Amino acid sequence: MASNTFGTIFAVTTFGESHGPAIGCVIDGCPPGLAIDSEMIKAELIRRATGRSRHTSQRKEKDDVQILSGVFEGKSTGMPIALLIENTDARSKDYSRIKDQFRPGHADYTWHKKYGIRDYRGGGRASARETTLRVAAGAIAKAWLKQEYNIEIQGWLAQLGSIRTDTVKDFSVVEDNPFFAPDASVVPELETFMDALRKSGDSVGARVNVLARNVPVGWGEPVYGKLDAELAAAMMSINAAKGVEIGAGFEAVAQKGTQHRDAMKAGDNKVEFDSNHAGGILGGVSSGQDILVSTAFKPTSSLRLPVGGLNIAGEEVEIITTGRHDPCVGIRAVPIVEAMLALVLMDQCLRNKCIN
Amino acid sequence: MASNTFGTIFAVTTFGESHGPAIGCVIDGCPPGLAIDSEMIKAELIRRATGRSRHTSQRKEKDDVQILSGVFEGKSTGMPIALLIENTDARSKDYSRIKDQFRPGHADYTWHKKYGIRDYRGGGRASARETTLRVAAGAIAKAWLKQEYNIEIQGWLAQLGSIRTDTVKDFSVVEDNPFFAPDASVVPELETFMDALRKSGDSVGARVNVLARNVPVGWGEPVYGKLDAELAAAMMSINAAKGVEIGAGFEAVAQKGTQHRDAMKAGDNKVEFDSNHAGGILGGVSSGQDILVSTAFKPTSSLRLPVGGLNIAGEEVEIITTGRHDPCVGIRAVPIVEAMLALVLMDQCLRNKCIN
Amino acid sequence: MASNTFGTIFAVTTFGESHGPAIGCVIDGCPPGLAIDSEMIKAELIRRATGRSRHTSQRKEKDDVQILSGVFEGKSTGMPIALLIENTDARSKDYSRIKDQFRPGHADYTWHKKYGIRDYRGGGRASARETTLRVAAGAIAKAWLKQEYNIEIQGWLAQLGSIRTDTVKDFSVVEDNPFFAPDASVVPELETFMDALRKSGDSVGARVNVLARNVPVGWGEPVYGKLDAELAAAMMSINAAKGVEIGAGFEAVAQKGTQHRDAMKAGDNKVEFDSNHAGGILGGVSSGQDILVSTAFKPTSSLRLPVGGLNIAGEEVEIITTGRHDPCVGIRAVPIVEAMLALVLMDQCLRNKCIN
Amino acid sequence: MASNTFGTIFAVTTFGESHGPAIGCVIDGCPPGLAIDSEMIKAELIRRATGRSRHTSQRKEKDDVQILSGVFEGKSTGMPIALLIENTDARSKDYSRIKDQFRPGHADYTWHKKYGIRDYRGGGRASARETTLRVAAGAIAKAWLKQEYNIEIQGWLAQLGSIRTDTVKDFSVVEDNPFFAPDASVVPELETFMDALRKSGDSVGARVNVLARNVPVGWGEPVYGKLDAELAAAMMSINAAKGVEIGAGFEAVAQKGTQHRDAMKAGDNKVEFDSNHAGGILGGVSSGQDILVSTAFKPTSSLRLPVGGLNIAGEEVEIITTGRHDPCVGIRAVPIVEAMLALVLMDQCLRNKCIN
Repeated sequence: MASNTFGTIFAVTTFGESHGPAIGCVIDGCPPGLAIDSEMIKAELIRRATGRSRHTSQRKEKDDVQILSGVFEGKSTGMPIALLIENTDARSKDYSRIKDQFRPGHADYTWHKKYGIRDYRGGGRASARETTLRVAAGAIAKAWLKQEYNIEIQGWLAQLGSIRTDTVKDFSVVEDNPFFAPDASVVPELETFMDALRKSGDSVGARVNVLARNVPVGWGEPVYGKLDAELAAAMMSINAAKGVEIGAGFEAVAQKGTQHRDAMKAGDNKVEFDSNHAGGILGGVSSGQDILVSTAFKPTSSLRLPVGGLNIAGEEVEIITTGRHDPCVGIRAVPIVEAMLALVLMDQCLRNKCIN
Repeated sequence: MASNTFGTIFAVTTFGESHGPAIGCVIDGCPPGLAIDSEMIKAELIRRATGRSRHTSQRKEKDDVQILSGVFEGKSTGMPIALLIENTDARSKDYSRIKDQFRPGHADYTWHKKYGIRDYRGGGRASARETTLRVAAGAIAKAWLKQEYNIEIQGWLAQLGSIRTDTVKDFSVVEDNPFFAPDASVVPELETFMDALRKSGDSVGARVNVLARNVPVGWGEPVYGKLDAELAAAMMSINAAKGVEIGAGFEAVAQKGTQHRDAMKAGDNKVEFDSNHAGGILGGVSSGQDILVSTAFKPTSSLRLPVGGLNIAGEEVEIITTGRHDPCVGIRAVPIVEAMLALVLMDQCLRNKCIN
Repeated sequence: MASNTFGTIFAVTTFGESHGPAIGCVIDGCPPGLAIDSEMIKAELIRRATGRSRHTSQRKEKDDVQILSGVFEGKSTGMPIALLIENTDARSKDYSRIKDQFRPGHADYTWHKKYGIRDYRGGGRASARETTLRVAAGAIAKAWLKQEYNIEIQGWLAQLGSIRTDTVKDFSVVEDNPFFAPDASVVPELETFMDALRKSGDSVGARVNVLARNVPVGWGEPVYGKLDAELAAAMMSINAAKGVEIGAGFEAVAQKGTQHRDAMKAGDNKVEFDSNHAGGILGGVSSGQDILVSTAFKPTSSLRLPVGGLNIAGEEVEIITTGRHDPCVGIRAVPIVEAMLALVLMDQCLRNKCIN
Repeated sequence: MASNTFGTIFAVTTFGESHGPAIGCVIDGCPPGLAIDSEMIKAELIRRATGRSRHTSQRKEKDDVQILSGVFEGKSTGMPIALLIENTDARSKDYSRIKDQFRPGHADYTWHKKYGIRDYRGGGRASARETTLRVAAGAIAKAWLKQEYNIEIQGWLAQLGSIRTDTVKDFSVVEDNPFFAPDASVVPELETFMDALRKSGDSVGARVNVLARNVPVGWGEPVYGKLDAELAAAMMSINAAKGVEIGAGFEAVAQKGTQHRDAMKAGDNKVEFDSNHAGGILGGVSSGQDILVSTAFKPTSSLRLPVGGLNIAGEEVEIITTGRHDPCVGIRAVPIVEAMLALVLMDQCLRNKCIN
């Protein structure tokens, strides 16, 4: 089912394993004439990169991206754009132990049962390494959305474990701390918490929020291509995601209708709303308000603390995962959710052109 | 983009407006040989029907379903199955007021802006009437999943407003109360609450949970056709849905890795797990555990209590919605989430056959 | 694979068997605002209808089409348009003989082997009755293409058996003779030939040509969504089609490059070409010249003249097909190829909007 | 519309321009466990390569293929398989002349009008260089079809200009002459003809045939995913293709029904047929007979003989195309049509598994 392709008109096909020679993607359907270079992609990849602080994995991936096609004299031509990133920090090591083990909380068991074979090195295709390509393709979508509609996409860490990290929302500080937190005052608490967590060998979950400003009214396709439905799929397809909310999300469960519905007003030149519980989407179609999405990420299961698992023979084994893992995968998910939002918006925008 | 089609191999295309002559669907890709009759579909439609208690809308829809094609001598032939349901309770009334109004919290404004035209009668295509067809198609998927894999799908109301309705989970009582609550003891509280709510003219949100038992290991397609990603899209495409969780969902945010990861054990004949925070899905692929999905539904915005809205001319107007609306749309969503789960599972099952 | 859907943006899903209660289709992706009524569809259906002369099948199908959805106050709304046609001349007769027989040259054997079950009455879903819906959906596409781009689509019978029927191309007479021949002088010869053929109990093949005028430059999607590739699939998907040509087609085999390539000239306001061997398509994209497609239709295999066939048990049986069959199915294919051309053009037009 | 992807379950996405750094493809949906190495792909690429005789283009492309993903320890894993081929003979030369010219018979004009920009070097994405990737992906499909079903695919040159090259069909000699002709005795005539043609500076068309043996009954999806419809699209999507026939093809036009229909007989263990006018496909589904497809290729328009063309400014210019072009592009199309047949069969086979 071409299940490695995301999107319909703006369609991104990714390939590659964590420890293979390279990963890459093919972006089909990019409109011609967009200025594209590897630097704009690299700038986004750096935000997702490991090793930028002691709070994320210490792997060092160079993530030098090559543009192999679809760009001519600095501009997109409408032809498929292929991006390639070589895997440079795929340490050759002894995988004999992991080879025959199913780690709990991982794709090992299910993928092995499904395919009967797997590239177990570093998680192979199931590794979050794949999300590098989402960010790369997302960089192109972001650039186009910005150029054509002045759309701004902003992600941030909203919660880490039990610590709410966005009681203040000052987006100017998001890039200045290793947590993508929009509240500088919470950073010391996060650092203390993460240091202790790392020392304990455990991991923790996170909530990542994202918004898009300046999305025009009318994007989204009733009834099975709704903007919110596609955003839900986009976010839930990210490694470790367990929940997605649009606007008020699960808070809507306890709300009354009089409280939830966002009253409308005639603003200057545009419609205004008293609130945004809808998260910018009504009937699956963008309303002109900010698009608001919140995603829950589970704590990684790759821990040096032992857990009961199985081996291929079906025998119980104690699993200990060493290596350079993120104690909170949610942190580095911030540029990924931004990318997924950009990919969905761009695809929906192009689809919306068909009826006009 | 064929946005009125759900699924890829088992593909359901729905059509029809709330107040048009009929609604219907075409189910493409149903394997041949499945026993199908209108009674098995009707049995599911009744669960979703209005007017079964004073707590849901008082519209009376007969929902007599005709099978127009794809079934021969009581069995599916592999050809497209068309189902048709005439709209019998589409009261002809004066729509002159609603015609030019955009109701807050509804698709009126966004769809009008997108298409420049809309069938405003009863919400037209944006009406939850469309979900009747999901339930009808889902009845066929359920029957096939039961026959081929003994899969059982069970939905229930987990929360209504602030009332948690599933602290006990006794599924035998779900069909015996008008709320699909699995705890008979909570029913009086719900009745009291709903009676007061109805009197007040307000509405309330709900959380609806669903599980599937006996799903084999291996369903779901990495990395963009993941089972959880498609479930998220499926649930979020339902009218009024605002959030979706798989397994632990947003609770995973505050969990530690040692707490969240579900340790594995060698059971008799099958793999067992210490817990099911994953919700039965690892790496986007079913693990053999119960599939667990939770969906948040917002309170309906259609209230007789006035709210600020706009008309087509962009002028502010006070909106009052009369008519026969559900004070809690989440209640009747129970059979709908079951249907969407069945549709996703069946499609993924058929896709999984391709690689084996 | 949703194999009963044609098109991507403008997507037509058909359903129904020859002798079931009804046939119908759902047209998804029609832009809003197009004037649609059942009369414009009926006008095209009549061109394809049986029983208009002694040279086609004598079945009488009323083909009254109902519009069930997607049209409001006479205009398309952007929502799926469902069309329904009841089967009125499905004679209830004894099918006990055909039930267990595989007719040579028919889908009986292959579909039975594939599905293990089939609705054998009148060919069921394999019957050319399905093409009624292509013509119905094509009527809508034609209307839109005419309104938006002044595109004219004209099909004709180019050859019947060995008789070339378009040595003159006077399209004004196409509708005035029962053969869709653009040369009135050939009609007597055709009548004589067909009368003898019918008497003999045999059937004959035909070539049907179609052109589209005023197609703008730029429709078609490299490299697997080429306009010519999609036209080839469209025509070959029609019952009894065995070959498709674009422009010079198989004549290009014996041509030299200097002869085939269509030299370009600067015309008034538009590019002109010395010839049209390309058939209006270069590199899979329309060039502004007339789109030219030619399709070969085989003679029907349903004859009262006996032929060796098999029964379900695998035993050899003599097959004699009685009933009201067309001695030349190619004649009534003229409105069908027009419809398929319209469907492809409309879909490609909408897709082309995405990049502009 | 992801128009650079071919296939649905077994989906091949190609990228790359003739004179860019590399071309490549991503093959999604390959079942796990298939033995794959670069040598088996190389073996097919050599058959398509330029420079193997004086009768084809004298470019020297090394076509060293790298497997970047989806293959682990020599076997497919079910993950996307990325193939990469560097462009080594992309001579850096002065393209200033071709840059602003539209060559008749080429994609220059139509693609420029569609996209407003194009990589003109060597035809860019419109170059037949893209077909290298079809052959590469086809090599994998061929290997799987052979392993799973013992399917054999054989293409050959059937006609070159007016010379019929397959009056004898001795497939053992196809690889032994530079024309893929199955009749050794015609080779001298072909050589003489081609030498004269090359000297004259002109080009010529060709007909290429292909068959597949041992295809099981039941592949193909009614009614819009018919095997013949998809084969027609597949062949017509190849550069320079102008016509496609299945079985009797256009000869069916002049046939009588009694002549065309292939009578069935009860053979030993399998159904037999008196003839194969159907080309192995009935009702869009394979019948177990040989699949027979014939494709017409036009003569290349890239000639050193001048022709009237236009420049970007719309002015008439005389176009002379120098460079190393094939005087008959149809010759090297033989491995390409084989590959397209393999791709279609493999995709249809996997789709057929869904219903069983």
